[in-house]
Amino acid sequence: MPAELSWNRYGKCHVRLVKVRRSHDSHEIVDATLDVQLEGAFAPVYIDGDNTGCLATDTMKNTVYALARHDRLDHIERFALRLADHFAAKPLVSRVAISALEHHWSRVSVNGRPHPHAFTQTGGEHWTTKVTRDADGTRIASGLTNLNVLKTSDSAFAGFPRDELTTLAEADDRILATSVTATWTYRRGTTDFGVRERIRAVLLETFAAHVSRSVQDTLYAMATAALEACGELTHITISLPNRHHLLVDLKPFGLDNPNDVFVATDEPYGLIEATVKRT
Amino acid sequence: MPAELSWNRYGKCHVRLVKVRRSHDSHEIVDATLDVQLEGAFAPVYIDGDNTGCLATDTMKNTVYALARHDRLDHIERFALRLADHFAAKPLVSRVAISALEHHWSRVSVNGRPHPHAFTQTGGEHWTTKVTRDADGTRIASGLTNLNVLKTSDSAFAGFPRDELTTLAEADDRILATSVTATWTYRRGTTDFGVRERIRAVLLETFAAHVSRSVQDTLYAMATAALEACGELTHITISLPNRHHLLVDLKPFGLDNPNDVFVATDEPYGLIEATVKRT
Amino acid sequence: MPAELSWNRYGKCHVRLVKVRRSHDSHEIVDATLDVQLEGAFAPVYIDGDNTGCLATDTMKNTVYALARHDRLDHIERFALRLADHFAAKPLVSRVAISALEHHWSRVSVNGRPHPHAFTQTGGEHWTTKVTRDADGTRIASGLTNLNVLKTSDSAFAGFPRDELTTLAEADDRILATSVTATWTYRRGTTDFGVRERIRAVLLETFAAHVSRSVQDTLYAMATAALEACGELTHITISLPNRHHLLVDLKPFGLDNPNDVFVATDEPYGLIEATVKRT
Amino acid sequence: MPAELSWNRYGKCHVRLVKVRRSHDSHEIVDATLDVQLEGAFAPVYIDGDNTGCLATDTMKNTVYALARHDRLDHIERFALRLADHFAAKPLVSRVAISALEHHWSRVSVNGRPHPHAFTQTGGEHWTTKVTRDADGTRIASGLTNLNVLKTSDSAFAGFPRDELTTLAEADDRILATSVTATWTYRRGTTDFGVRERIRAVLLETFAAHVSRSVQDTLYAMATAALEACGELTHITISLPNRHHLLVDLKPFGLDNPNDVFVATDEPYGLIEATVKRT
Repeated sequence: MPAELSWNRYGKCHVRLVKVRRSHDSHEIVDATLDVQLEGAFAPVYIDGDNTGCLATDTMKNTVYALARHDRLDHIERFALRLADHFAAKPLVSRVAISALEHHWSRVSVNGRPHPHAFTQTGGEHWTTKVTRDADGTRIASGLTNLNVLKTSDSAFAGFPRDELTTLAEADDRILATSVTATWTYRRGTTDFGVRERIRAVLLETFAAHVSRSVQDTLYAMATAALEACGELTHITISLPNRHHLLVDLKPFGLDNPNDVFVATDEPYGLIEATVKRT
Repeated sequence: MPAELSWNRYGKCHVRLVKVRRSHDSHEIVDATLDVQLEGAFAPVYIDGDNTGCLATDTMKNTVYALARHDRLDHIERFALRLADHFAAKPLVSRVAISALEHHWSRVSVNGRPHPHAFTQTGGEHWTTKVTRDADGTRIASGLTNLNVLKTSDSAFAGFPRDELTTLAEADDRILATSVTATWTYRRGTTDFGVRERIRAVLLETFAAHVSRSVQDTLYAMATAALEACGELTHITISLPNRHHLLVDLKPFGLDNPNDVFVATDEPYGLIEATVKRT
Repeated sequence: MPAELSWNRYGKCHVRLVKVRRSHDSHEIVDATLDVQLEGAFAPVYIDGDNTGCLATDTMKNTVYALARHDRLDHIERFALRLADHFAAKPLVSRVAISALEHHWSRVSVNGRPHPHAFTQTGGEHWTTKVTRDADGTRIASGLTNLNVLKTSDSAFAGFPRDELTTLAEADDRILATSVTATWTYRRGTTDFGVRERIRAVLLETFAAHVSRSVQDTLYAMATAALEACGELTHITISLPNRHHLLVDLKPFGLDNPNDVFVATDEPYGLIEATVKRT
Repeated sequence: MPAELSWNRYGKCHVRLVKVRRSHDSHEIVDATLDVQLEGAFAPVYIDGDNTGCLATDTMKNTVYALARHDRLDHIERFALRLADHFAAKPLVSRVAISALEHHWSRVSVNGRPHPHAFTQTGGEHWTTKVTRDADGTRIASGLTNLNVLKTSDSAFAGFPRDELTTLAEADDRILATSVTATWTYRRGTTDFGVRERIRAVLLETFAAHVSRSVQDTLYAMATAALEACGELTHITISLPNRHHLLVDLKPFGLDNPNDVFVATDEPYGLIEATVKRT
């Protein structure tokens, strides 16, 4: 049957890039999801199974990370232009499209000042409340969910046990990123529900200021700070998914990676949960 | 076979409530999703198909809207307590749980001042860019997506044609809610990509300040304002889903509803799109 | 500033349509999500706020339901063509696009034969298991989630109490649609986990064959049938969201609607949960 | 402030495991998402930042893959029991919970017989259609989306160019997994829309039977087979995301991995698209 390949395009989608720019005083973070798409004289790949001209999409991904190493990434448009230049110079390519989705982070405010290396993302945060009434009376548990936070320093994880299946390296300076879900129980008779703004502020400030030895350590600091700040609370339960940011191995490309270029991952993720109560 | 109903619970989930508190100077908005869950002596409903004690979940939904009419809803906890009281007094009920997810809206800032009836929600907003390079050169289209906005006044839709399938009433004062996606094309040679903050501000301010006769009318005002504010843009395409907020009919409960209690709906939704170019 | 409206399109998206074709012996169901999009000479709507030519998107939605009443909907393409014809004849319209997403339902098999009015949708179904080990020993709870089912007959809900906030009409023949989540606990020492296929079959068959007086009634029948079929189970917990299918009011268009044209809704939804244990 | 850690739990969630059991005649596939959760005497981790007892969640992930190597995984319950045994023996642990979500794959049917190593997953598949009417006439494009398929053999990717940023190894026998979106255009005047079942069957059979040298190669074979099978089609566009299944490196645990244990990944993913037209 006479058929013709009338259009084709291929590439790599959802390349998750996180870049930290570190200066003496403070850090900046760029968080983006990139797509690379190529069009060109690729018909033999489709029709003849001939891959000699088919740049692997895995190589496109590597290119994003390698070029990010020495790019300031001050405007995502400029980085996209640079990627477009790179791929336009490859054989067979007649059209390059680089698409990026940039995820904005704001600095956490501590004592009214922007924190040098702790960030928050307001997307999707909700206040929650659950009122339960039965023969034992009425209980009110309020909270928040989807409070996204990330810090680029003051987070370590070391000294953990190593069994025959352990490969994780010790980390003395890693990215810690999570999405806070917190639920606190009010003392019976509480009527001032406006305290939740204060609890939220304390959770954020503690996340930012705490020097973390583990997610558990951070969680406990946040929980006790909330109990301390608000006498109306009797318990607080916090759940912290550990949204791993993995340092990209750039050695194959002759590049170092001094805590600079990361891939943000969705799964698997660690999940740390605990309840702390006032005694 | 001997079997026992050892636990049961039922209720209504995802009741979408939007309440507007209107004062002379400004409006306030409460936006929440509520669940009502009851436990109690409901075994005959399951075992005997006997519904005489089974309060319909549809009635639970009605109750949320009817009680919202004369509640200030200043704290969702208090409204949840009131709902818990209401359902705890019903026959057979031994346990009530009211859960709420509150969706926060901030006021749009216009000329540095909070707008009296225009709001924005930062959740999930992203910056976007797409760089395309081919034989025709390089094009850069930047934009934003998921910028949620809502206004509680200065929006109408009237004078539209009525055919035999038209039932929509004319509206001279409705809620207008949308999630802005905008994409603009930069003039060739542009290097200042920092203008996007300005474009975002202009889009927000125009949404807030414009007296809208239709979503189309608002879209065109936003697009022309963006072109006017930034000489670097040659085109702008805006897409506005109309997230309908429907006035709840409270007459069956002996209540009026003077633009006060709404149900927010996800689907179906209107979708308005256009491109405006500089000439 | 000289600007030109260079492109525009508007319409209604995500119109949820369910149509039941009833014959003496069996029912057939069509389930689709439709988008209507129009292009044409609509510039005055955008530029002048002149709505005289702007067919309301609400009317587009009405049109989908009204035209579905006397259409066989045997192929969604033919129905889309008919809608395209309808809207192409409207003033100002130069281009119509009708998009549809069709959701396929298969008949439930009972005793090896396809059931006349019970359907299932395989999308997204998962098997689940949870093994818990502590000082009390080991417990195994298996189950399934997202088993979508719908029946177009043998479902009623009547005889429920009416308080001052009740508006729901009694229904003697309604659509019952749900997404089954079931979790059952195995007797200690169970090693034959292949029974889960049998439990799934019994849940489906009971949903299909049972004459339902409420979701609770159906849930209890399903749970007891599962316990009866499999001696290895000690408890079963079932959770059934009531995915309401609302009869569309076609009277404004001079049409009856004898349980024929429905709108499928996502929220709010009833949620019915219970645990039944072997005694 | 006196506070007490009253409850804690931690673990690894969403560990994606795909295991292929290969026999002479045919392959079987197990696809599951697992969560590991531990409770126990972990208070020092929270309170003192003392990690000496804190088994890393990364080690939990490794454990899932290492134990899967020599497990038949015939029932996910048995594998979960084995994992529970493993973690219950660790210091400080008082409670282990292993949760699994199993994703079912069915064999593709080719000429009425189940294929030995090609599988499909029905979840979330939809039929699509788009009818467009304008001055040029009427066009009908139908298709399907979310048709998930996977093959455990007859897929390679080799001979691609290697630049300074290429690290991908050549593969002569890899898992090929994708989610097919296809859209075909009918010749003007077509009235038999029932052919779509035939096109779907041809797409599935070709995916199964084809010996793939790249995703592009498979795409072209599927597209030409569809055009050949149905004379009513003039064009077909197919979009194939490459859902990478990565072989897990088990060498650190003294285990080989002969194409047996994989991690299924969501992002980044390759995306291959093309249109083939009848000439």
